[in-house]
Amino acid sequence: MPPSDDAGLTRPEGQAGNQALDRFRQVRARTLDLARPLSAEDQAVQSMPDASPTKWHLAHTTWFFETFILRPLAPGYRVFDERYGYLFNSYYEAVGARQPRPLRGLITRPGLDEVLAYRARIDQHMELLLESGETPELLELGLAHEEQHQELILMDILHLFAQSALSPAYRPAPAAAVGAPPGEAGWVEFAGGLVEIGHAGSGFCFDNEGPRHKVWLEPYRLADRLVTNGDWLAFIEDGGYRRPEFWLSEGWAQVQAEGWGAPLYWRETEGGWREMTLHGLRPVDPAAPVAHVSYFEAEAFAAWAGRRLPTEAEWEHAAQGPVQGRFLDASPAGRLTPAPVSGRGAGLRQMYGELWQWTRSAYSPYPGFRPAAGAVGEYNGKFMVGQMVLRGGACVTPPGHLRASYRNFFYPHQRWMFSGLRLADDGA
Amino acid sequence: MPPSDDAGLTRPEGQAGNQALDRFRQVRARTLDLARPLSAEDQAVQSMPDASPTKWHLAHTTWFFETFILRPLAPGYRVFDERYGYLFNSYYEAVGARQPRPLRGLITRPGLDEVLAYRARIDQHMELLLESGETPELLELGLAHEEQHQELILMDILHLFAQSALSPAYRPAPAAAVGAPPGEAGWVEFAGGLVEIGHAGSGFCFDNEGPRHKVWLEPYRLADRLVTNGDWLAFIEDGGYRRPEFWLSEGWAQVQAEGWGAPLYWRETEGGWREMTLHGLRPVDPAAPVAHVSYFEAEAFAAWAGRRLPTEAEWEHAAQGPVQGRFLDASPAGRLTPAPVSGRGAGLRQMYGELWQWTRSAYSPYPGFRPAAGAVGEYNGKFMVGQMVLRGGACVTPPGHLRASYRNFFYPHQRWMFSGLRLADDGA
Amino acid sequence: MPPSDDAGLTRPEGQAGNQALDRFRQVRARTLDLARPLSAEDQAVQSMPDASPTKWHLAHTTWFFETFILRPLAPGYRVFDERYGYLFNSYYEAVGARQPRPLRGLITRPGLDEVLAYRARIDQHMELLLESGETPELLELGLAHEEQHQELILMDILHLFAQSALSPAYRPAPAAAVGAPPGEAGWVEFAGGLVEIGHAGSGFCFDNEGPRHKVWLEPYRLADRLVTNGDWLAFIEDGGYRRPEFWLSEGWAQVQAEGWGAPLYWRETEGGWREMTLHGLRPVDPAAPVAHVSYFEAEAFAAWAGRRLPTEAEWEHAAQGPVQGRFLDASPAGRLTPAPVSGRGAGLRQMYGELWQWTRSAYSPYPGFRPAAGAVGEYNGKFMVGQMVLRGGACVTPPGHLRASYRNFFYPHQRWMFSGLRLADDGA
Amino acid sequence: MPPSDDAGLTRPEGQAGNQALDRFRQVRARTLDLARPLSAEDQAVQSMPDASPTKWHLAHTTWFFETFILRPLAPGYRVFDERYGYLFNSYYEAVGARQPRPLRGLITRPGLDEVLAYRARIDQHMELLLESGETPELLELGLAHEEQHQELILMDILHLFAQSALSPAYRPAPAAAVGAPPGEAGWVEFAGGLVEIGHAGSGFCFDNEGPRHKVWLEPYRLADRLVTNGDWLAFIEDGGYRRPEFWLSEGWAQVQAEGWGAPLYWRETEGGWREMTLHGLRPVDPAAPVAHVSYFEAEAFAAWAGRRLPTEAEWEHAAQGPVQGRFLDASPAGRLTPAPVSGRGAGLRQMYGELWQWTRSAYSPYPGFRPAAGAVGEYNGKFMVGQMVLRGGACVTPPGHLRASYRNFFYPHQRWMFSGLRLADDGA
Ligand SMILES: [Fe+3]
Ligand SMILES: [Fe+3]
Ligand SMILES: [Fe+3]
Ligand SMILES: [Fe+3]
Repeated sequence: MPPSDDAGLTRPEGQAGNQALDRFRQVRARTLDLARPLSAEDQAVQSMPDASPTKWHLAHTTWFFETFILRPLAPGYRVFDERYGYLFNSYYEAVGARQPRPLRGLITRPGLDEVLAYRARIDQHMELLLESGETPELLELGLAHEEQHQELILMDILHLFAQSALSPAYRPAPAAAVGAPPGEAGWVEFAGGLVEIGHAGSGFCFDNEGPRHKVWLEPYRLADRLVTNGDWLAFIEDGGYRRPEFWLSEGWAQVQAEGWGAPLYWRETEGGWREMTLHGLRPVDPAAPVAHVSYFEAEAFAAWAGRRLPTEAEWEHAAQGPVQGRFLDASPAGRLTPAPVSGRGAGLRQMYGELWQWTRSAYSPYPGFRPAAGAVGEYNGKFMVGQMVLRGGACVTPPGHLRASYRNFFYPHQRWMFSGLRLADDGA
Repeated sequence: MPPSDDAGLTRPEGQAGNQALDRFRQVRARTLDLARPLSAEDQAVQSMPDASPTKWHLAHTTWFFETFILRPLAPGYRVFDERYGYLFNSYYEAVGARQPRPLRGLITRPGLDEVLAYRARIDQHMELLLESGETPELLELGLAHEEQHQELILMDILHLFAQSALSPAYRPAPAAAVGAPPGEAGWVEFAGGLVEIGHAGSGFCFDNEGPRHKVWLEPYRLADRLVTNGDWLAFIEDGGYRRPEFWLSEGWAQVQAEGWGAPLYWRETEGGWREMTLHGLRPVDPAAPVAHVSYFEAEAFAAWAGRRLPTEAEWEHAAQGPVQGRFLDASPAGRLTPAPVSGRGAGLRQMYGELWQWTRSAYSPYPGFRPAAGAVGEYNGKFMVGQMVLRGGACVTPPGHLRASYRNFFYPHQRWMFSGLRLADDGA
Repeated sequence: MPPSDDAGLTRPEGQAGNQALDRFRQVRARTLDLARPLSAEDQAVQSMPDASPTKWHLAHTTWFFETFILRPLAPGYRVFDERYGYLFNSYYEAVGARQPRPLRGLITRPGLDEVLAYRARIDQHMELLLESGETPELLELGLAHEEQHQELILMDILHLFAQSALSPAYRPAPAAAVGAPPGEAGWVEFAGGLVEIGHAGSGFCFDNEGPRHKVWLEPYRLADRLVTNGDWLAFIEDGGYRRPEFWLSEGWAQVQAEGWGAPLYWRETEGGWREMTLHGLRPVDPAAPVAHVSYFEAEAFAAWAGRRLPTEAEWEHAAQGPVQGRFLDASPAGRLTPAPVSGRGAGLRQMYGELWQWTRSAYSPYPGFRPAAGAVGEYNGKFMVGQMVLRGGACVTPPGHLRASYRNFFYPHQRWMFSGLRLADDGA
Repeated sequence: MPPSDDAGLTRPEGQAGNQALDRFRQVRARTLDLARPLSAEDQAVQSMPDASPTKWHLAHTTWFFETFILRPLAPGYRVFDERYGYLFNSYYEAVGARQPRPLRGLITRPGLDEVLAYRARIDQHMELLLESGETPELLELGLAHEEQHQELILMDILHLFAQSALSPAYRPAPAAAVGAPPGEAGWVEFAGGLVEIGHAGSGFCFDNEGPRHKVWLEPYRLADRLVTNGDWLAFIEDGGYRRPEFWLSEGWAQVQAEGWGAPLYWRETEGGWREMTLHGLRPVDPAAPVAHVSYFEAEAFAAWAGRRLPTEAEWEHAAQGPVQGRFLDASPAGRLTPAPVSGRGAGLRQMYGELWQWTRSAYSPYPGFRPAAGAVGEYNGKFMVGQMVLRGGACVTPPGHLRASYRNFFYPHQRWMFSGLRLADDGA
């Protein structure tokens, strides 16, 4: 089980307790906590085909446990509602037909109350199962899956609220000391050579993180911090979005077709650049990492800066310390935007949390990769084309969710996720 | 004021009372009645660009009174929320920018509660104004406008629910005696000649109903009832949707592009044809009028039958009796689908209510038509191209709303409104 | 037979000769004349789905005679190439499948030489048939059809050349005396009343021109000339394309979606407005009629001018003189753009030729209209929805082709045809 | 200079001659040879946005020499036509605006004759320059570029002719002994380890082939022949195109959206499967390699077969022999379709020529890759996202063009190129 960040979850009895049950309850509760600030209306609407309603996330994660654990394993379990399989299956072809993804926002029935009842009922059955001491094989997958959807809830709500003329805040802004300028980025050197990447050890990981395998790396270096809004403003002011020489061909086509001129949630106002965040519309903080940029933009920025993005192997090889960083703060007053780098350390900073970091690596199977048998084999493998890998997690990623070997992936034009970048370069 | 269908609305004092105020309250209350069976989620979602969320209808009709009556007329009136103009303006260019129509379903904020508070506040101010005895010039337009949106609420909810895998019912089905087969349609003959159409008299009408003007009509005849589902089944079984010879060129292209094979809400099941209605999924009743057909389909049916559709002048000239028919039954148990023709009268039946009847007339300005000055001049005139006229009202049209001169209009491919048809032919 | 404009076509023998054969030869020869300035490449390419390659026009008009005259009537006639039916059928569902319209430009085989051989062979058989003295029932339809395609050849080539960075001229510009400013338009009054429109007499007409029928007209007046480029410049300069209050709702959406700011072929250059024409890129002549405007633009202009467009009945009732005007000049030096009005007459000028004149009448069937039986019944009737009527012919319409009752029709957004407008207004 | 396959091109004098000049003439002549069977019409039309007209290829390759060699290097050179830069620039942003790619088929002017004159004029100047003994730095790039366009001419013409109802043949079919069934594929094992790939030595290569660099390979094996049509028929018959479990998610979406059920040019006829080829419509030969399949299909086939595709490093490491195989046969009777494997060798067969072989490697920059300075830096680098690498060349690739390190690349859905596949698997 990944390291837990939440205190006080040990059993009152003091004995070993039932760790699986505790973790199940903790994860499931966090999802409800995240939904709590939202009205039934907020939770029902879909703002674009890539995003899903919160209510759908609530039901889909529940359906995952019902379908892959309760149905096969819970003796005598009766399905809650046969029609939910159609409504809340995401993309598992092996499990049957489903609501077309772009139409998830049409699901006004079942209502939020019924979906909450569905969650309660499945939780009851799952807890019964877990109390028996059994730890189903797919339990940890179901929990990691739910954690991914927790992050999606926040991504998707931000996207929805960003479409609103009212620019509502999901959560009040924390007392936001604007960051001090971080100064020039430093560089950390790596000798490369024949290294190993991919998940090691016996803990849980997604199938796409393995097998662990050798990779040859040339000497390289990584910037010791993420690219900031201040850096990005310099790029904009130097014509970054108007000069094709920095852009991949597809990226430039996108810039022109969509009229891109800044990161997804930036708006130019009379009072300067502002940014839509989960705390509402806020002034852009030059010291904070730039967020919601696409791979195309990240590539163009790197070209403008005369550098490049790291490969995922370079990133992972460099990230061999404890997984520490600013992940999702589920408390009602927590900050949900990336924060300026603090202090001036001796090495890489902001490697985990804050923002997912684009790599220049296409999302491909590792040598020897085989998807699992059955429906869960569709979890990751079938998306291994056309997307790029991001590493490190973000300020909306649940704590304990990440690993050094963790591979996130998105299409190069997408930008509604909490994505940023760190520069790299060839070594000496 | 159009004839009222609701009893008991006279003032208790016995004196003349305040008819304008009474009517205002009655219309506004009916909208809330129609929304009552719907959850906040049902009221927030938009199922297609042509449809709007119920909540948006609730707010937009309110904004209409606020913008066109309270702002100019109520002394010292303070606007409820300046941002609502952007959110709830439909298409009035003269009043400013607005939420793009296809994105009305993204308005989760303000929530339903806030919109209801908006309604209450505007009602309060309107009642104050009306209690003063004044009858603002645009009052009746605002009320007729709200009645149109009442019908839209039902059209749009049916469309939303028809997208649902659960096929929910907006209202429980009434004890539905399936109709007796109506038998062959009879014909009623008209001599034509130089007649007059268009609104006459001093009562309220929309601007597009006038000026009253002369039209020359050749002799013609009209079927004495609407085309039924049974008639339509014969058309389907004779290859109606597979034989291009019956179709307008654009209609045939639509049939092929969209794979049309039956009216919009029909579904072929193992148990035969069923139809999605406001009472849920119901067996198709062969005796009831066929509903939710496009102009293209109506034209093709008429060609198949060797007849034609009437012109709007033919229809109006024939419709010179009292406006009687089955209009919206707002009571919680009322039927919201068209009913089979009853009895065998001596003349035209089902002229009003039941279903809007397609005419072969393009929606054009009448001779001498001039749109009103100001924003309300955009009400009807700017839509006078590309659409076809429908006449007679439907079972979802509020009672008292219709006139013989009433012109409804839709694009020839649209079918989510309550549209049906009556055959016509040249006279002897 | 319509009045002929070409001299010297009478038979040398002095006897009555074979008028059908003469006319057949004359029409067929004009098509080849029109194609002559074009390379095989020019004739093969399709510049948009609405347009067709010249080669396709050459073959399609030939296929029309082969299919509707030679096959049924010529004893022992053997089809030239069975595959041509698929390639060169335009839209006759009754005759079978066909090359999708947007893909006509992919027909590189048969080559132009083969298509010319096809024409020669069909001409030979047609002449044999006509020399026998027979005049097939559909001959005049086939010839009128070919004349329509002659106009289409010029429309389509202009569209193709207008896409070219080289702005090639189809024909050298005639010595173009720039017109003198025509001054303010005058008005001609009509009393209206119960009039008749539609084709009268025994000559050929298209089916959509009848039956002749009564129409009631209120008093009206027509401008005595077409709207000029100078008039249009005033509209542009007064913000015509930026002010929604003049536009139909659909028209305004089009203006914004397509970025319209001037007629289709106008280009703003450093040297002022220029216009792409069949004589290449030319300065806009303020005295000449404005061409290549859509119905949406014509409507907006009329609204801006405080007038309206005429109905087709008003136009036809006013046009009861001889059909005289500047039609297609097939000679290699002839002018192929509309010319400034000349002189100052006592009545309506520019009623025929120059430019098709938009009316505010939707293209609908006349009372009593029935399409012909068989495939040619598809000629006009199946397009009677969504389009608007234009009257009067243009400088690219073959002479002798027009009648007062002639109804042309296009969609309200289209503008690649030679369309202009004449203002109308209600009478005293 | 790559090895030449064409005999008789040595200088008659026996002396060293001018190799650069010879090669220039040879390459330029082959392009004209390839265009010769095509009419001006065939050469003008564009069948889809990905394809270009032959005439455009003729002019664009010429413009490349003019722009990148003659303009900077030829003293006093005067540009042939300033407007050609706009028309025939493909994608070089640094060189200026250009004809939008999907509209290349609208270029009827300049005509083919003018383009041939353009070629002749540029050849003359180039020959003058080369005769001076100078070998411009970009000469070989220009020639390799033209060779790539030679292959494109054949790909694009096949696509155009495949749209034709006449299924024309570009070249008559050679006496085609149908191949003997090749039997089961054998496997060739590779131990892997730390190997090097990328271009080595001093000869010409494209920038994307370097730098040469180390790669770690696990043990693997490759099939000793390409997948055949016979193999593919088994895939189809086993439901390959109907079973989502074999497909990448995007691939399955494509299959459903486009209705894929066979390789691009296969057609099911009453007489069995036929395939459109440069020799016209031919029966599918089960012994020949399957061609015109997308990456999606190649991946699905491999999954169905229980194998995988090779990486590009695996392929290149295995391909370390002489570059021998069946490349473009420019003689008028040569075969332009892939041929069945011949003999049963001791190792890998069909590594070069026949068909480009899909790899599972995304097209990414090699470690240390930097695009060249200036416009030619746009040649390859800006396409390094979203595409997959293919290796080995095809039967339409000019001889002498290929190298072991050669990287071709296409999007995973594309299939109009001559693409096939070879299976791979993990080693023991
Ligand atoms: Fe999921
Ligand atoms: Fe409204
Ligand atoms: Fe035609
Ligand atoms: Fe090129």
